[in-house]
Amino acid sequence: MKFNTLHRPCNRLPNLLAQHHHPKAPRLSIASSLIRCSPINGVIQSRSRSRSTVLHIAPSTFKSSATDAAPTLPASAPSKPAQTYPPSTSSLTFQEAITRLQLYWSSRGCAIWLPHNTEVGAGTMNPATFLRVLGPEPWNVGYVEPSIRPDDSRYGDNPNRLQRHTQFQVILKPDPGNSQELYLGSLEALGIDTRKHDVRFVEDNWESPVLGAWGLGWEVWLDGMEVTQFTYFQQAGGKPLHAPAVEITYGLERILMALQGVSNFKDIKYNEAVSYGELFLQNEYEMSVYNLDKADVAGQRQRFELFESEARRLLAERLPVPAYDHLLKLSHCFNVLDARGAVGVTERANCFATLRALSREVTSLWLSRREELGHPLGVISPPTPPSPQQPKPVAGGVAAAPFVLEVGTEELPPEDLDAGLEQLRERVPALLQKLRLSFSGVRVEGTPRRMAVIVDGLATEQTTQESEVRGPPTKAAFAADGSPTKALEGFCKKNGVAPSDVTKQSDAKGVEYVFAKVKEVGRPAAEVLTEALPGLVSSLSFRKSMKWGAGDVTFSRPVRWLLALLGDTELPFVWGNLQAGRATRLLRNSEQPEAQVPSADAYESVLKAANISLEQDSRRSNIWEQVTAAAASMGGVVAETAGDDLLTEVTNLVESPTLVVGSFEPKFLNLPKEVLVMVMRKHQRYFPVVVAPGAPLLPAFITVANGSVDQDVVAAGNAAVLRARFEDATFFYEEDLKQPLEAFRPKLAGTIFQKDLGTLLDKAQRMEGLVQPLAQIMGISDPQAVQTAQGMDAGVAEAIFEAALPRQAGDMLPTSHAGLIALVSSGVSFDLPAAVRAAAQLQPLQVTDQVQQQVLDYLAGRLEQLVQDTGVPPELVRGVLAERGHNPALAAATAQQLHSAWTSADQGEALRSMIAALSRPTRIVRGKAVDPSWSVDPAKFEHPEEAALYDAMTAFQAKVQPSSATVAEFVDAAAPLVAPIDAYFEKVFVMAEDEGVRQNRLACLLALSSITRGWVDLSRLPGF
Amino acid sequence: MKFNTLHRPCNRLPNLLAQHHHPKAPRLSIASSLIRCSPINGVIQSRSRSRSTVLHIAPSTFKSSATDAAPTLPASAPSKPAQTYPPSTSSLTFQEAITRLQLYWSSRGCAIWLPHNTEVGAGTMNPATFLRVLGPEPWNVGYVEPSIRPDDSRYGDNPNRLQRHTQFQVILKPDPGNSQELYLGSLEALGIDTRKHDVRFVEDNWESPVLGAWGLGWEVWLDGMEVTQFTYFQQAGGKPLHAPAVEITYGLERILMALQGVSNFKDIKYNEAVSYGELFLQNEYEMSVYNLDKADVAGQRQRFELFESEARRLLAERLPVPAYDHLLKLSHCFNVLDARGAVGVTERANCFATLRALSREVTSLWLSRREELGHPLGVISPPTPPSPQQPKPVAGGVAAAPFVLEVGTEELPPEDLDAGLEQLRERVPALLQKLRLSFSGVRVEGTPRRMAVIVDGLATEQTTQESEVRGPPTKAAFAADGSPTKALEGFCKKNGVAPSDVTKQSDAKGVEYVFAKVKEVGRPAAEVLTEALPGLVSSLSFRKSMKWGAGDVTFSRPVRWLLALLGDTELPFVWGNLQAGRATRLLRNSEQPEAQVPSADAYESVLKAANISLEQDSRRSNIWEQVTAAAASMGGVVAETAGDDLLTEVTNLVESPTLVVGSFEPKFLNLPKEVLVMVMRKHQRYFPVVVAPGAPLLPAFITVANGSVDQDVVAAGNAAVLRARFEDATFFYEEDLKQPLEAFRPKLAGTIFQKDLGTLLDKAQRMEGLVQPLAQIMGISDPQAVQTAQGMDAGVAEAIFEAALPRQAGDMLPTSHAGLIALVSSGVSFDLPAAVRAAAQLQPLQVTDQVQQQVLDYLAGRLEQLVQDTGVPPELVRGVLAERGHNPALAAATAQQLHSAWTSADQGEALRSMIAALSRPTRIVRGKAVDPSWSVDPAKFEHPEEAALYDAMTAFQAKVQPSSATVAEFVDAAAPLVAPIDAYFEKVFVMAEDEGVRQNRLACLLALSSITRGWVDLSRLPGF
Repeated sequence: MKFNTLHRPCNRLPNLLAQHHHPKAPRLSIASSLIRCSPINGVIQSRSRSRSTVLHIAPSTFKSSATDAAPTLPASAPSKPAQTYPPSTSSLTFQEAITRLQLYWSSRGCAIWLPHNTEVGAGTMNPATFLRVLGPEPWNVGYVEPSIRPDDSRYGDNPNRLQRHTQFQVILKPDPGNSQELYLGSLEALGIDTRKHDVRFVEDNWESPVLGAWGLGWEVWLDGMEVTQFTYFQQAGGKPLHAPAVEITYGLERILMALQGVSNFKDIKYNEAVSYGELFLQNEYEMSVYNLDKADVAGQRQRFELFESEARRLLAERLPVPAYDHLLKLSHCFNVLDARGAVGVTERANCFATLRALSREVTSLWLSRREELGHPLGVISPPTPPSPQQPKPVAGGVAAAPFVLEVGTEELPPEDLDAGLEQLRERVPALLQKLRLSFSGVRVEGTPRRMAVIVDGLATEQTTQESEVRGPPTKAAFAADGSPTKALEGFCKKNGVAPSDVTKQSDAKGVEYVFAKVKEVGRPAAEVLTEALPGLVSSLSFRKSMKWGAGDVTFSRPVRWLLALLGDTELPFVWGNLQAGRATRLLRNSEQPEAQVPSADAYESVLKAANISLEQDSRRSNIWEQVTAAAASMGGVVAETAGDDLLTEVTNLVESPTLVVGSFEPKFLNLPKEVLVMVMRKHQRYFPVVVAPGAPLLPAFITVANGSVDQDVVAAGNAAVLRARFEDATFFYEEDLKQPLEAFRPKLAGTIFQKDLGTLLDKAQRMEGLVQPLAQIMGISDPQAVQTAQGMDAGVAEAIFEAALPRQAGDMLPTSHAGLIALVSSGVSFDLPAAVRAAAQLQPLQVTDQVQQQVLDYLAGRLEQLVQDTGVPPELVRGVLAERGHNPALAAATAQQLHSAWTSADQGEALRSMIAALSRPTRIVRGKAVDPSWSVDPAKFEHPEEAALYDAMTAFQAKVQPSSATVAEFVDAAAPLVAPIDAYFEKVFVMAEDEGVRQNRLACLLALSSITRGWVDLSRLPGF
Repeated sequence: MKFNTLHRPCNRLPNLLAQHHHPKAPRLSIASSLIRCSPINGVIQSRSRSRSTVLHIAPSTFKSSATDAAPTLPASAPSKPAQTYPPSTSSLTFQEAITRLQLYWSSRGCAIWLPHNTEVGAGTMNPATFLRVLGPEPWNVGYVEPSIRPDDSRYGDNPNRLQRHTQFQVILKPDPGNSQELYLGSLEALGIDTRKHDVRFVEDNWESPVLGAWGLGWEVWLDGMEVTQFTYFQQAGGKPLHAPAVEITYGLERILMALQGVSNFKDIKYNEAVSYGELFLQNEYEMSVYNLDKADVAGQRQRFELFESEARRLLAERLPVPAYDHLLKLSHCFNVLDARGAVGVTERANCFATLRALSREVTSLWLSRREELGHPLGVISPPTPPSPQQPKPVAGGVAAAPFVLEVGTEELPPEDLDAGLEQLRERVPALLQKLRLSFSGVRVEGTPRRMAVIVDGLATEQTTQESEVRGPPTKAAFAADGSPTKALEGFCKKNGVAPSDVTKQSDAKGVEYVFAKVKEVGRPAAEVLTEALPGLVSSLSFRKSMKWGAGDVTFSRPVRWLLALLGDTELPFVWGNLQAGRATRLLRNSEQPEAQVPSADAYESVLKAANISLEQDSRRSNIWEQVTAAAASMGGVVAETAGDDLLTEVTNLVESPTLVVGSFEPKFLNLPKEVLVMVMRKHQRYFPVVVAPGAPLLPAFITVANGSVDQDVVAAGNAAVLRARFEDATFFYEEDLKQPLEAFRPKLAGTIFQKDLGTLLDKAQRMEGLVQPLAQIMGISDPQAVQTAQGMDAGVAEAIFEAALPRQAGDMLPTSHAGLIALVSSGVSFDLPAAVRAAAQLQPLQVTDQVQQQVLDYLAGRLEQLVQDTGVPPELVRGVLAERGHNPALAAATAQQLHSAWTSADQGEALRSMIAALSRPTRIVRGKAVDPSWSVDPAKFEHPEEAALYDAMTAFQAKVQPSSATVAEFVDAAAPLVAPIDAYFEKVFVMAEDEGVRQNRLACLLALSSITRGWVDLSRLPGF
């Protein structure tokens, strides 16, 4: 879908293709980024918050009667009788869904808050989230929030994307410890039977640099469709939260489309009488027209300024609440400007800086105001860790027993699971060794919800250790009468030996000391492990770790239980707010989601009985066998290799793989294969099926659900997700093909490039205009030939343009070095100052000589870094750039030649002695009054060495073209100069009494010191 | 509570004293307006919308379990199974109340809408109300709305008033026909047992001139507390609604305070865990500081301009939705400016004009856009009236039967009930007579919910009538052969006679015509009444009538049933969408709210059995007896006379009077008696009790509930209402007494008087500055003496200042004529131009001579009207003002003297002949070239009459001081002139040939024509 990236502003791509932004998620390959285009939906909410596709799922698969939906979850909230929901006579309506979520979360102790009374881009921006997650006060709320994202305006035409969509937002602070289970209960409250559906927590982190906020969590998938964002909020306003807050954000339109089985938001039943479209379509259309086409840009800019200055005043007045309100107004204002395509690059950066600064000040002020108010809602007490216990003794007489440690977590990101297991594999044997616990074998395995260490034949006691311990010097150990001193008595007591048992030994210096043989008796393994295991768990580290409600401990995701058994003995170690025991958790939707493990050797069978596949390798091969078999059964093969990333990822996404096979309509096969594969693999983690390797796709997919599900239901759900994505892709693909590429060009006029530099179209036209002058500079007569003949493309022209930046302090910076790299690697000789002059002339504003010089200086700095990055030492780079910087390709080549000559065994020495020789005339003339107009008159030579040097110099000048000579040419030509120079300084006294003679000699040396001009400035080289 | 009216900006008075604004409500006497101060809460919502006191009611009186609260109402909405509400374990929380209202109205077919995402002053302003009530589409919604009224900011200190309060808003369009019953069902859903409580619909109309919107309805009282506004929306944006919409607005804070029995909003339980104050107090405080003290005034003005111009652009672009959004932003912006005290009089008027114009344009555009869109929600069909039926024949042989007509309504305003009954008393006998139906007696009685006509002994048939009808002239009736012509045959056929039966008779002119004796046989009364009664009902008119969902018929309030019986025969006449029958409705909370009346003579007993007192007089005396007895039983008397307005009003407010006696804490007796009485009588319609006539109050009240209630519950509720009002009054009374009046003065600086004229403090200072110059103008040496010695107070100075208005087109107009009246009635001689000059010099801007003249002209116009209003004919007034207008008191006195002289028997004739005489010289010189510099030279007289006239004139001038003479003095002095004038014109030819003589004569006449200068301009008088 790269087809119209240039022509349709990036942030208006169909939501189908709008990927979530995982700053470091490994699965975002370059290939996927080709079709990824993060919409910037609202300044403040993160890009990753944009909800994408809304999907259709057969409604019959959802329970429509909720009478049996009353969840019986461990509620941390004030205990309340179970809710009974009003019976629903048909499928859930939009407003019923809201009411049910309100009732559900209310019964779990949440205050039901109201939407905010100024435009917000997401429920997160309601002060009930953004301000209230700060500070030490507890906060539990749920609320619906109409979220306004001008950039998502589609005139109501797009079936899945709206400028006003409806979120339901829940904040639980502190983490109640069972937030995932509470969330699943809310799905039940919506009539979703979680025993039939595939509900998955798929890594999705959130970050808003503008707000100085981030959190870790997941998108929740329901049969392949993202229905919720689930985040442990870690930081806001640049400050770590006192207590991390759980944020749950439901996308109501998409959930209701799924529950009702409709494929267009318009068709959602809002209540029994009216549809969503009947209620909101006019609003959607008119607000889209406003946001995209009609909002007064100048007026919005004025608003921005007014809101900004008011926010600043209010901060000064110490009023965080209205200040935050103005921050929201500011943000909405920016979003409207942005949707209008009116925000240039500089302006965007400035706006972001403004918002960032304000949000930090607001949060600081809010925190101190709450403190001044004495934290009206109270202060969250830190969790009380369980009191430490000693393990019960292991049944006597057993020398070795199996040991198991299970760290039970909420869904780990696949990469983190691997990282954790890797660390355990390395550290556990080392730890056991250090603890003097012998064992016959260690295995480390894991699933998304558990990391397990299984040790076979672990000694139940430490091995005993004997060692000699040095005591005081013999002189100090015994009194004159040979009786033990206090010092010896103390030493003996400490080491449990009698004074009579000590031996004596001299050290290397001949001083004699007493020694005792000390025997360290092995302690029970249960004890030492109970002491050591907290450190092991704490030692695990991840790309990004988080806190939750467990105190100061951190982990990739919350740790919810710990199992530690040595034989049948619990090792009750305490970590965070948990105490290890014999309980493990099984699949969430199984009959018995928790089990007691009688002994370590029963651990694996307990999991197996619950259909959990603990071993990664066998899980992986099992999945692959099933997937290939399924592909074969439909007469194809998986469009995958067994060892690739997708299989690895899927292996880490499920612990109870359940194959689900589905199909899609063959008509979608008309889309480019790359698109189909990308959607299936990257977005949905499906295995596509081809007729044969490299052959066309079959209209089918294979996905792997987790645990026992109703496969038909899950297949239907996933098929609906895929259909929606493919239909959206088809729409845009066909739209794009309707007209040639060139036809999109006028749309560039809709987006400001930079405030004073016009639109993107203006910029494109300037780039065209630059082709002719650049061709001339490069000596190319046919400009059309530039691209083909010289292998240069528009990127180079763009780079030249960007080279004209920044033009003053605070101006924007170039976004890429593509141009510079292209120039350097093209090898083409190029006059940079001339090019900058040409580009300057095309700008719609005056670019002064001074600014042009700044541009060249800036470029020189970049070029220097670029060449240094290839490994050339800074002195050599600077020496070359001082003379050849105006011609980047030549300069880079020269610097690299110089560097290799410098470091080469055969040329290096010659080069350095040549430089040493050439440095002498330079040092002589430096600081002396030498008039460059003086010429050398051979007639005035008094010594033959003068004539010899002069001749050698003349010979050199005849041989070398300084502005283009390679290093080799220069060194070759300059070698004959070394001897005459040395001879000259041996015989000739430059500063002769006779003025004429003196001037003649200085003129000669000046000429000599200048022979490297245009090649390299020797004075910058080492050893000069 | 006049105490601080001047010193605290009017719109910040405690809500306790903020009365609702009934533009024409009769009970708003001048006395009550003294303490009334309508807050302007939001430009757009009407003043009458401001909710006032929130009250405490013992929570035990409300059902806390809702399991038995499922209402079984006639639901017009799609039939749904009865709702079951989640059980509540303790008293209803704030959020539970919201959820219950959502569930209740949802089950009645309402879409549950969401709060709007920009600030609104009331739920009415959400586009879901303001736009959607327009047009022919059906619309049923309910939603909670946080309503922002900057002017209600109190820093969270006031227990009952918040700048952000929460409304629950319901719109039912079209009127479902049972909206009151649906509403009562919602109270049950909130756990309020309507069988125990006194629920009353008390007239409260709504008008927003700014929005061109109005509606008729009630405030709903729950045991004396206003909990809801209930309005039939009639017009919006200046346009009558296609279908009137029912608007129900609950004030949630006050309802919850009552249900939970708390007296401060902070103490409302928001949910089980947190209080309202814990959630909102910081917001309330900070937003109050912003609204009242810190909002940047200049910035808000800029916003206003930006929002206004954007709204206009969007209207031009035909985008009503974003245009309306900007109208809301504009309105909020104005409200903030207003709360900051920054809106001057002119600016306010301009802002209102802007908003008015915009709202009209938005509504027009919305209507046409919806039409263009084809009314996506469908079109409301007009109600199908029942098909007309003929009454069944009355049982034969009965010559006369009782007749009853009952027009059953929703609660009528007391005044409308009286007006309707009065009209029926007049029209029914006339109608029966016209219908030739004899009767023995007619009674017309009524209650708030019914108007009844009871006719005794009504003839069951019309009387027969015989009459002679004139036919064609005899000549045309018979052919030459005496046979009947076609003309005669036609006439006979039409009148049912044979040609042979006609008689002949000549008219006054001698033309002979044929005549027929026609007998009109009486039709059954049931038939003619069934035909005539619709016209009778339609003929009733009221101050203000409304439509509801019944078609084009109008009435004071919706008519919900019609009963018409003649004997036991139903008269099934059709009016609106109703068909009359034998059903009547009884008290809403009785076991059987509807009854069938077997026959007309059973009507009164059916009502009586249901405890409904139909007769006004007996109801009134019954109430009075009970009230006086109750007062006596507590050892006092009612602080009322039996015939006063309150008893009249109460009689029309209930149909089943139930006395409820309550008390208040004696400490409140420290408040001024006037305040206590006012609150009880005017606001609460209670009867206060005094020890004896004129003696102090007892701490008790007597109120009259409607129907069977739990008197203890109702007494407790009303007592709580009163306590809250008294506590608020105490707070402000004590606050006001804490410092002297002068101490409030600096607060005047907080409110702009007029943009270019500074603050109210500046204005007050100017008024002070005016005392000295005014004293000089009036010749008073000690300015301090002005007030006492001259009986003038600051009002006069204010009047002078106001006199300086308007200074240009569009400027504000003076708000009172107090000053002018004071001047006129003081009798003090006063130089108005000098005073205006003095006032002009004190203004902070230049007031030009031209503007001063405009001021004087304006004042002259007002003065003219003022004097005319005392009964002086316009010509006399104008005649006097032309000469003495600069001195108002003198001018008024002169005009009145002139008028009484003119109309007096003895002076009138003399005055008129004097004027006739004096008119002659004026007419002669008028239009002639008379140089005012010519002087009269007695030497040039040629006739003795010339000399005589000249002498008489000289004598007059010596006697009279024209600028101060009374009419009597003038007439006395001028009488001797009449004879010389008459003689002069008999003998002297003015326009003599000789130029000198002619000029001398003209000069004399000119002098004569000027002798009334300074007194009255005779040329303006009648007869001149």
